[in-house]
Amino acid sequence: MAKTNNPARPTARLPKGFRDIEADELRETQAMLGAIREVYEHYGFEALETPAFEFTEALGKFLPDSDRPNEGVFSLQDEDEQWLSLRYDLTAPLARYVAENFDRLPKPFRRYATGNVWRNEKPGPGRFRQFTQFDADTVGTENVAADAEICMLAADTMEALGFARGEYVIRVNNRKVLDGVLEGIGVDPADSYCAKRLVILRAVDKLDRLGAEGVSLLLGAGRKDDSGDFTKGAGLDEAAIAKVMAFVNSGTEKGSDTLKAIASLVVDSEAGQQGLAELAEMQSLLDVAGYCDGRVRMDPSVVRGLEYYTGPVFEAELTFEVTDDDGRPVRFGSVGGGGRYDDLVARFTGKPVPATGFSIGVSRLQAALTALGRNKKAASPGPVVVLVMDRAELPRYQRMAQLLREAGVRAEMYVGTSGMKAQMKYADKRGAPCVVIQGSNEREAGEVQIKDLIEGAKAAQSIGDNKEWKESRPAQVSVAEADLVAEVKRIIARHTD
Amino acid sequence: MAKTNNPARPTARLPKGFRDIEADELRETQAMLGAIREVYEHYGFEALETPAFEFTEALGKFLPDSDRPNEGVFSLQDEDEQWLSLRYDLTAPLARYVAENFDRLPKPFRRYATGNVWRNEKPGPGRFRQFTQFDADTVGTENVAADAEICMLAADTMEALGFARGEYVIRVNNRKVLDGVLEGIGVDPADSYCAKRLVILRAVDKLDRLGAEGVSLLLGAGRKDDSGDFTKGAGLDEAAIAKVMAFVNSGTEKGSDTLKAIASLVVDSEAGQQGLAELAEMQSLLDVAGYCDGRVRMDPSVVRGLEYYTGPVFEAELTFEVTDDDGRPVRFGSVGGGGRYDDLVARFTGKPVPATGFSIGVSRLQAALTALGRNKKAASPGPVVVLVMDRAELPRYQRMAQLLREAGVRAEMYVGTSGMKAQMKYADKRGAPCVVIQGSNEREAGEVQIKDLIEGAKAAQSIGDNKEWKESRPAQVSVAEADLVAEVKRIIARHTD
Repeated sequence: MAKTNNPARPTARLPKGFRDIEADELRETQAMLGAIREVYEHYGFEALETPAFEFTEALGKFLPDSDRPNEGVFSLQDEDEQWLSLRYDLTAPLARYVAENFDRLPKPFRRYATGNVWRNEKPGPGRFRQFTQFDADTVGTENVAADAEICMLAADTMEALGFARGEYVIRVNNRKVLDGVLEGIGVDPADSYCAKRLVILRAVDKLDRLGAEGVSLLLGAGRKDDSGDFTKGAGLDEAAIAKVMAFVNSGTEKGSDTLKAIASLVVDSEAGQQGLAELAEMQSLLDVAGYCDGRVRMDPSVVRGLEYYTGPVFEAELTFEVTDDDGRPVRFGSVGGGGRYDDLVARFTGKPVPATGFSIGVSRLQAALTALGRNKKAASPGPVVVLVMDRAELPRYQRMAQLLREAGVRAEMYVGTSGMKAQMKYADKRGAPCVVIQGSNEREAGEVQIKDLIEGAKAAQSIGDNKEWKESRPAQVSVAEADLVAEVKRIIARHTD
Repeated sequence: MAKTNNPARPTARLPKGFRDIEADELRETQAMLGAIREVYEHYGFEALETPAFEFTEALGKFLPDSDRPNEGVFSLQDEDEQWLSLRYDLTAPLARYVAENFDRLPKPFRRYATGNVWRNEKPGPGRFRQFTQFDADTVGTENVAADAEICMLAADTMEALGFARGEYVIRVNNRKVLDGVLEGIGVDPADSYCAKRLVILRAVDKLDRLGAEGVSLLLGAGRKDDSGDFTKGAGLDEAAIAKVMAFVNSGTEKGSDTLKAIASLVVDSEAGQQGLAELAEMQSLLDVAGYCDGRVRMDPSVVRGLEYYTGPVFEAELTFEVTDDDGRPVRFGSVGGGGRYDDLVARFTGKPVPATGFSIGVSRLQAALTALGRNKKAASPGPVVVLVMDRAELPRYQRMAQLLREAGVRAEMYVGTSGMKAQMKYADKRGAPCVVIQGSNEREAGEVQIKDLIEGAKAAQSIGDNKEWKESRPAQVSVAEADLVAEVKRIIARHTD
């Protein structure tokens, strides 16, 4: 047959950095997204979904973490030869949307969004090129009450997801305060391309990993790591290093103490004073709302990689330890963050539109819940499987499955073509709570056999002998066909207590 | 300032064929996806999510509707210079997944999937380059009980979405029967590249639009349309045309009559006989399950554009009329379809794996619900807005919003910086059921004003006079601050009866 070509067969595989997500994990993700959505809706945010594609020029160069040059977007040209890109986050499309619809939107505009984003970067363990984010943003107000609210929202979200108080903390800082400190040591904070400023920010960002000593080295001449590699430092003198380290270490349990400590470091800087006032206002709002009990904490060591933040920055962190790839205990760390950004909408309109937002990494949160063993509850049992003992009786078996479904039971007739043994194996693989069996004997007697697979698996562990098994027939009952639904429901109820 | 560049500003707009989806519509979509998911889970299907990207060679040339050459995929090269494409449907990624994981999967493998797909085609009204599909497939069985089940699933899904019995029909045909008819008129059905065969299929597919006469012309010499354009026909002789038309028109209310009519047309064809036997088995299963009451119908005029179907094909159709762009009533038409395909997995493994599936267009279904005015219920009220009358009292207002949220009420403090008038306008735009107001007088008296915006809007229509309005102060109450939550809840309850 010349017509059915046989070209070289492609390999069945995915491109690197992409993965399939199967039922159990998806069920958990769905439950998580639902819980997050409920909190965000409750706070008055409205859903918005933008498409995967934007014009490349609309995304601009606001790539997060631009100090990682590998990180890029997926781009292609459409039929009109215009460049399109897949979104790399949910903030850039929001800026485009707000600029496009500004006049008709309520102001402030409060939206949440969830969906996949794509990064054309080198994938690694736990580092994918497609992943899910969940964002909330308030656009069109400079009021830091919006920032305080986002910290409360973040804390409430952690608890809605099942993290206990003390297992997470929302850490808050303010870019302007950091700028004030930089001013004080002679670094121009407005110069976002200043190499020294970037080296300082990157050094401070490594506090968790390297400790105070390591950061001090990176602020000064440089640091040699365990492998002997040398990283050149920012070249600050000792007084400047001391000032930056004093700032970074000024976080205390009590927010008012932290603010006092910061105040002494930014006396001479207008930006620093303004940042301090904003932190104080947030502290006051959070305090009245009761969130300064450890849920939200002022912490001057928070940097956040994104260069476009202009005021308050926040980081949601899980504080418990997990075991890393080398078997060592490590703090789970950041699961989300955000802050105030004022320039994204201005890119389109020329008018600055102050905004603040928060983005959480759903996959990382899910990994954290898995590490804690807290997401098992979402798993639901497989369907009841009605076995096919006699193909001539298909309509009869299908009717049984249908009756079960009509009674609210997840159920299916086996639709394959294999024999009894393969059918039992199928039911096992599907996690069926029980199977329904009707051979010709049972049919003539108007009966069905129901085999409880969960009970059966338990019994199999205690009964070693095949003969004993056959005699006792554990976890299998025979009932009148009319009682099928009631008996199946009884068995399922027994296992869901 | 040399540092803040001012490059040419990009226009805030989306590429053609893409769109933003806002809160009300998204809420409806969520509710629809939830309803569909529940039905599919209930039938024993498991969720699977594959990523947006596949290797281009893995997608192959199984593009739907390949008679529309404009229709293409979005493709790009990754760093290794391998071609990646965005999925254009959910079936091709399923085939790759099954081939990749074949040994460990339960067989048959039953999965459902929902997500966006992308088509690099010319967009038009209601025709987008990104849209949502919802699929269910059973892979690894030739048993047509799986096909019958999918028809039942499709019907149940229509009802779960709110379509009444009689407003939809699942139409069933079998490719093999059609092949038998083609054999009978001397067209080789195995030649999928045969131009005549494609012209015939396309002609039959237009029955709804052109009627029997138009289709007959397209089966013969050709047809001139209203604009005078001539479409060349398949060139069949009169006897052949009569045979095809007899087949196409053999659908009746009663499935058994339809099968009898078909039987007389495929006596000499083995494929035709086999298709007839499959239809008869499906008819029997559907009959016992009670779905032949008009929900599922044997209909030989169903073609389905996809060339890869090899046996049963189904089409979900909405039967009620809507008004088209020219104001004429038209049948709403197809909202989904599917069928049996045997070659998709074989592309990778060389081994044929019989499969059957069904895909529904979520956006089209949503448009249908909108046309019927049945998706309004999903709309939820906006948040209660606590107005800010005095910025020095922000913590106090925020605490009120928090108390409302803690009581389960969707609420927010106004986080903008504008005055009373703008705040009221904001609350209106957000669809707030009521606003909470506390000026200095109320604060000193330990009271809050609550303004019922829904009641207020009604009163505004009946009171024309500003003086009368001020005197009666409709829909506004003053309560003790301690009664804030109870009073807000009372107002909301009044409007949700």
